[in-house]
Amino acid sequence: MTKQELIKQIRNKKSFLCIGLDSDIDKIPKHLLSEQDPVFSFNKAIIDATSDFAVAYKPNTAFYESRGLAGWQSLERTIDYLNTISPKVFTIADAKRGDIGNTSTQYAKAFFEKLSFDAITVAPYMGKDSVSPFLEFEGKWAIVLALTSNTGASDFQFSGTHNHQNQLYQQVLEKAKNWGSDENMMFVVGATKAEMLIQVRKHIPDYFILVPGVGAQGGSLEEVVKFGMNKEIGLLVNSSRGILYASSGKDFAEAARFEAHKLQLQMAELLF
Amino acid sequence: MTKQELIKQIRNKKSFLCIGLDSDIDKIPKHLLSEQDPVFSFNKAIIDATSDFAVAYKPNTAFYESRGLAGWQSLERTIDYLNTISPKVFTIADAKRGDIGNTSTQYAKAFFEKLSFDAITVAPYMGKDSVSPFLEFEGKWAIVLALTSNTGASDFQFSGTHNHQNQLYQQVLEKAKNWGSDENMMFVVGATKAEMLIQVRKHIPDYFILVPGVGAQGGSLEEVVKFGMNKEIGLLVNSSRGILYASSGKDFAEAARFEAHKLQLQMAELLF
Repeated sequence: MTKQELIKQIRNKKSFLCIGLDSDIDKIPKHLLSEQDPVFSFNKAIIDATSDFAVAYKPNTAFYESRGLAGWQSLERTIDYLNTISPKVFTIADAKRGDIGNTSTQYAKAFFEKLSFDAITVAPYMGKDSVSPFLEFEGKWAIVLALTSNTGASDFQFSGTHNHQNQLYQQVLEKAKNWGSDENMMFVVGATKAEMLIQVRKHIPDYFILVPGVGAQGGSLEEVVKFGMNKEIGLLVNSSRGILYASSGKDFAEAARFEAHKLQLQMAELLF
Repeated sequence: MTKQELIKQIRNKKSFLCIGLDSDIDKIPKHLLSEQDPVFSFNKAIIDATSDFAVAYKPNTAFYESRGLAGWQSLERTIDYLNTISPKVFTIADAKRGDIGNTSTQYAKAFFEKLSFDAITVAPYMGKDSVSPFLEFEGKWAIVLALTSNTGASDFQFSGTHNHQNQLYQQVLEKAKNWGSDENMMFVVGATKAEMLIQVRKHIPDYFILVPGVGAQGGSLEEVVKFGMNKEIGLLVNSSRGILYASSGKDFAEAARFEAHKLQLQMAELLF
């Protein structure tokens, strides 16, 4: 999906909501466990219930890998199903991969060819040749971790000189933005530090930002928009648990739809 | 596997060789392609031919994921087969994972429980809570990226103050060593910079180091031993392509055995 197509979807749906499909077999409603592929059945119901209000879906690969072959099958079914949704949704493999060049190419094949995702999240520690291979696939995106929303973010991401000009996450933004363009690259910036988006926008005014931390991880949507939105919107805001597990009963999909709609209505107000 | 068991295997085999099973279906001998699972057949033959000379095996997950379900099956068969080898070999999932805490736990389950690896490589960018979950599994290891052997290593790993005391890879060593102990944690240090092992050893005198870059990626075994060995050996030196693809003919396993033996003989000389 191109940047212009994504922006068009955002304007049409009045939503920049991404739904994180961190679908944990131990947390999905119990009545689904008798299904042939409970996690896929769960995902399909969530997608059907929310796709009016979401422009992007982001399965976190860990929750699928932890179930081995069966999990990989659920992931495959999920991306195949996402690719049938009309109008098209933007699909992100939240995989946080990154390795030396020829190995990153194998990861790119895994998530762009074998599984037809539009985008993959990538860890920057190994530098340019670990990220560039993902940028060589036409119409595909690398979403580079810059500032994450976990407590461990402070261990290394803020290290550097103390004038707040050259911390690691800023170096990542400054360097990585030149490896690709705002047409094939985005950045992850955690919303627990919404005011830091001011600094982030100085480095990358034109890039889309994927904000992981609204909902269960905290973070205010108003602040994210205030500090992070640019003239082309430039934001995908994720919610996972708040939507997926809104109800543990048979009404889980309806409850998920309600939560997604609530977020979309807030977004619509902030968009115009 | 405990640290003492690993050291015992190293002393018995007079080898600290790790073989990287970066098994690429496009590079394995063509006559194997008619097998039901060509990559597993290749791995099995390589393992059978080399396990006299190697103490550890390290499949790189990218080469399996790029083949989707079939690849995941090859990986599953490979780790199951490795776990039948006697005396036991140390098994590393070279996966370079890392995510927020509850997600890293899912990755740990994937590689320690669903697949029975002894160890997994982990990326440090997201800090302590992205690494700690891997350390909570009894008898299992996290191998944290510190200094990698690719050209992109210089993008961020050396950033920091310029007195060479506080570069990012050093911060990673200093902080991460306290998250676990030398009984459940190792570090990746690329051998293209063997003399940097002097600096590395100042930070982590007692930890095992996994050296990825001997062979096709360059790096001298003598220098690695000179600068990196400690009183408990403390080294696993990896070779992948130089062994796996020593021959593309029907004699590939024999050729792999020859290359592995050559390395083991050098190691035996350097060990005593």
